[in-house]
Amino acid sequence: MNGAHALIRSLVTSGVDVCFANPGTSEMHFVAALDGVPEMRAVLVLFEGVATGAADGYARMAERPAATLLHLGPGLGNGVANLHNARRAGSPVVNVIGDHATYHAKYDAPLQSDIGAIAGAVSGWVRHSALTSEVGADAAAAVAAAREGQVATLVLPADVSWEPDGGVVADPVPAAPRAAADPDAVGAAAAALRSGEPCILLVGGDATSADGLAAADRIAAATGATVLAETFPTRLERGAGVAPVERVAYQVDIAVRQLAGAQHVVLVGARSPVGFFAYPGKPSDLVPPGAHVHTVAAREGAAAALDELADLVAPGTTARVAALARPELPTGALTVASAAAVVGALLPEGAIVVDEAVTSGFGLPGDTAGAPRHDWLTLTGGAIGWGLPAATGAAVACPDRPVWALQADGSAMYTISALWTHAREGLDVTTVLYNNNAYAILRGELQQVGAAGFVQHDGKRAKALLDLGGPDLDFVSIARGMGVPGVRVTTAEEMADALRRASAEPGPHLVEVMVPPLVA
Amino acid sequence: MNGAHALIRSLVTSGVDVCFANPGTSEMHFVAALDGVPEMRAVLVLFEGVATGAADGYARMAERPAATLLHLGPGLGNGVANLHNARRAGSPVVNVIGDHATYHAKYDAPLQSDIGAIAGAVSGWVRHSALTSEVGADAAAAVAAAREGQVATLVLPADVSWEPDGGVVADPVPAAPRAAADPDAVGAAAAALRSGEPCILLVGGDATSADGLAAADRIAAATGATVLAETFPTRLERGAGVAPVERVAYQVDIAVRQLAGAQHVVLVGARSPVGFFAYPGKPSDLVPPGAHVHTVAAREGAAAALDELADLVAPGTTARVAALARPELPTGALTVASAAAVVGALLPEGAIVVDEAVTSGFGLPGDTAGAPRHDWLTLTGGAIGWGLPAATGAAVACPDRPVWALQADGSAMYTISALWTHAREGLDVTTVLYNNNAYAILRGELQQVGAAGFVQHDGKRAKALLDLGGPDLDFVSIARGMGVPGVRVTTAEEMADALRRASAEPGPHLVEVMVPPLVA
Repeated sequence: MNGAHALIRSLVTSGVDVCFANPGTSEMHFVAALDGVPEMRAVLVLFEGVATGAADGYARMAERPAATLLHLGPGLGNGVANLHNARRAGSPVVNVIGDHATYHAKYDAPLQSDIGAIAGAVSGWVRHSALTSEVGADAAAAVAAAREGQVATLVLPADVSWEPDGGVVADPVPAAPRAAADPDAVGAAAAALRSGEPCILLVGGDATSADGLAAADRIAAATGATVLAETFPTRLERGAGVAPVERVAYQVDIAVRQLAGAQHVVLVGARSPVGFFAYPGKPSDLVPPGAHVHTVAAREGAAAALDELADLVAPGTTARVAALARPELPTGALTVASAAAVVGALLPEGAIVVDEAVTSGFGLPGDTAGAPRHDWLTLTGGAIGWGLPAATGAAVACPDRPVWALQADGSAMYTISALWTHAREGLDVTTVLYNNNAYAILRGELQQVGAAGFVQHDGKRAKALLDLGGPDLDFVSIARGMGVPGVRVTTAEEMADALRRASAEPGPHLVEVMVPPLVA
Repeated sequence: MNGAHALIRSLVTSGVDVCFANPGTSEMHFVAALDGVPEMRAVLVLFEGVATGAADGYARMAERPAATLLHLGPGLGNGVANLHNARRAGSPVVNVIGDHATYHAKYDAPLQSDIGAIAGAVSGWVRHSALTSEVGADAAAAVAAAREGQVATLVLPADVSWEPDGGVVADPVPAAPRAAADPDAVGAAAAALRSGEPCILLVGGDATSADGLAAADRIAAATGATVLAETFPTRLERGAGVAPVERVAYQVDIAVRQLAGAQHVVLVGARSPVGFFAYPGKPSDLVPPGAHVHTVAAREGAAAALDELADLVAPGTTARVAALARPELPTGALTVASAAAVVGALLPEGAIVVDEAVTSGFGLPGDTAGAPRHDWLTLTGGAIGWGLPAATGAAVACPDRPVWALQADGSAMYTISALWTHAREGLDVTTVLYNNNAYAILRGELQQVGAAGFVQHDGKRAKALLDLGGPDLDFVSIARGMGVPGVRVTTAEEMADALRRASAEPGPHLVEVMVPPLVA
């Protein structure tokens, strides 16, 4: 068995049976081996950033890693941004990076680069596979490392792949036992929650599951603590039947108000709250001055820790759950607000929402809070161009669930070729493409960072960099070019019709929602 | 003067007056300062890989660096692939990477990552700017470093930008004196060339200019040496009036035949020839066994060294030049061969050809060899997705010259949003988009690396990863969605008509050329 075959078989044996691939010459033996391991599903993408974003979306929903197949350093480079998001999400991902044959490296051929340096910036685990006899074991180790909630990168030289004999299929590496929450930390948090002093219970990681949120809600009900979820959860369960939770706002001023007055901040699966960016004269550390921070659990095991804590401080308390309550379908010309109401009115039961709507998503959390139960995936690392790829992966992970990609225009253009994979794989992804003809968030940020005061003369040249007009993007035409049917809508009624049709038909659709920018 | 203003003014003072930008929050002060420095032209791109590829294309034609403006580690990551190409081209590029404020870094906010690690993999020079008072000097140093023929990356924390006072405009840093060719090396090469033993004169770097090629041709005429150019030149001057040169083939078997029998390989601006990839049973080092390798000059200064060498071994010899000789316009259904003839028949005087045609470009070198004088830019680093961005930069550098982007379909999809910038800037770029519905090169590579023999069963799953059909891409629709008018052609006559119309009208055009894949 050659190395590539042993590698793929070992991935499958360890439970990795989807690979988002954009191969090149150094990966040809991997490609050739695919027909010998039919359990491995290879999904072709047209850009590596789609592969890595898809692996992230897949992992969030499947709760196990997919593999990516990328071509040397530049291929990995193209995948960096979405690996960054995966790293911040704690998503398990196994990258397989094809490299030159070991003996070819010394010639510094044109595609040679320092793969390890790039991999190290986004991976928790990096290994260069050196022997065909070991590549199966390397794959199993990569999967085990990924399952700890990180990006694992295996560099695979071409000759390690192609060596015809000596490949060995490896057994899965047993998962490291998950550390239980530290009883002292749980006890200290319980004491804080019982103290009667104002407490914020900040949840993240796997505590934004329905179970985790129920435990958090019980604690709040029993102790008077305020529950907040981290600003950008990896996967937030919400909607009817789930305990509702507010998220820490992206905007520093609002976040400061949400946290104001707390004497204790109890972190369960979340990191201590900080500003997404620094802004002159505004705090970076959002913990109110003088408040005590109690860290109870890391990203994984957070829901279990919350259960323990709830059993201590809220025995017999029942969690509230959101009632089914949808907004009325609005009418007339679309605004960000009315577009949110249309989504809230029509979001299907069991939907997976991939949220990269940025400023056009203002209003969505409120208008979907009472929609049928669904999952909400967010841009954990802030690297835009994640939505359409992540929707790809979520749809592959959950073929029986509708995926709604709520997608801003500027961000969409980073990885727009994901639409082609939606079409090729027949994925049930409805892309709601908010076209506001601007990098509207940057118009706001220009103010927030105090840069607007520095703009000189008429500011025309600065404004031109925040503007997507001239020419205006036509996403229906772009989508058609990649095999995804689309329609442009300008009224709430048209939007509702288009979403109903998209939901009724299998396969991908794009609804281009023309909205005025939230920040003019 | 704030830091951002001092930075931009210093760039301009050092001769950098174009910036390909995709800014985010941390770059808002840079954006705000643009109206105060009207000499700096900021060109908005919708993806960072377009910015870096454009800077590469710009540098190759302008012979001076442009700046890029990128957003933290993920933005740099998106630019890595084309920075890799720029690095291999020896192109001067100045990256400005916005970062979090210095005091914000310790909070490890979501967008934080190891920018230095990623930058190091593609840059010859990296500096983290730390003080507003120094940022102007840092910019001048970055330009000086870039001018040595490398990528220089300056990391710019937001607070260094926004500090309102203390920015100082820096004077240009004098260029390092260029090392003259080592007289001993020139002498040894001259001796080899005069020895009567078979010699290959392999030229690269700035020796693929018309002057360099003339000197090389004189040497060949006087000594009987065979001149070859490196496989992927940064910028090759060619066509009527220029000394013709053959390039070392990408295919190892052909390259081995080109070099066979040489007892001396004289390198002037080129690196010793190696296989682009390793292939089982084929050599990595393409120098014939036992041949002596003589290195005369590095990439820069190679043309000058060739002149010295020609004066030694070929005094009084005149270089041949290619005659004006175009192919007849073919007729009928398009093939790769007839499409090349159409290009050869119509390529305008002074054109800049950006060649990422991959397998669909087979035939182009021959059919354009006698076209009016033009420049040919190639994929130096092998990281695809370079063509449309590089065409952007070349057109910005040379607004009075027509740019023809000869572009393969699969590669085009990596950075397709470059078309939008072609439209926004009104660039005279004609994109000849070869649509063969496949990663045809990989079909060939599957054979070349011996992987085809490992394909099991019907090989359907392997083949699916090399196939761009289902759905078929429609580049006319995609281009229309970004404001570039396009037309699909299936016959040579249609192609000729479309190219004539594109040449007659200002602004960007796309001609989608439907060709059967070279490798079925």
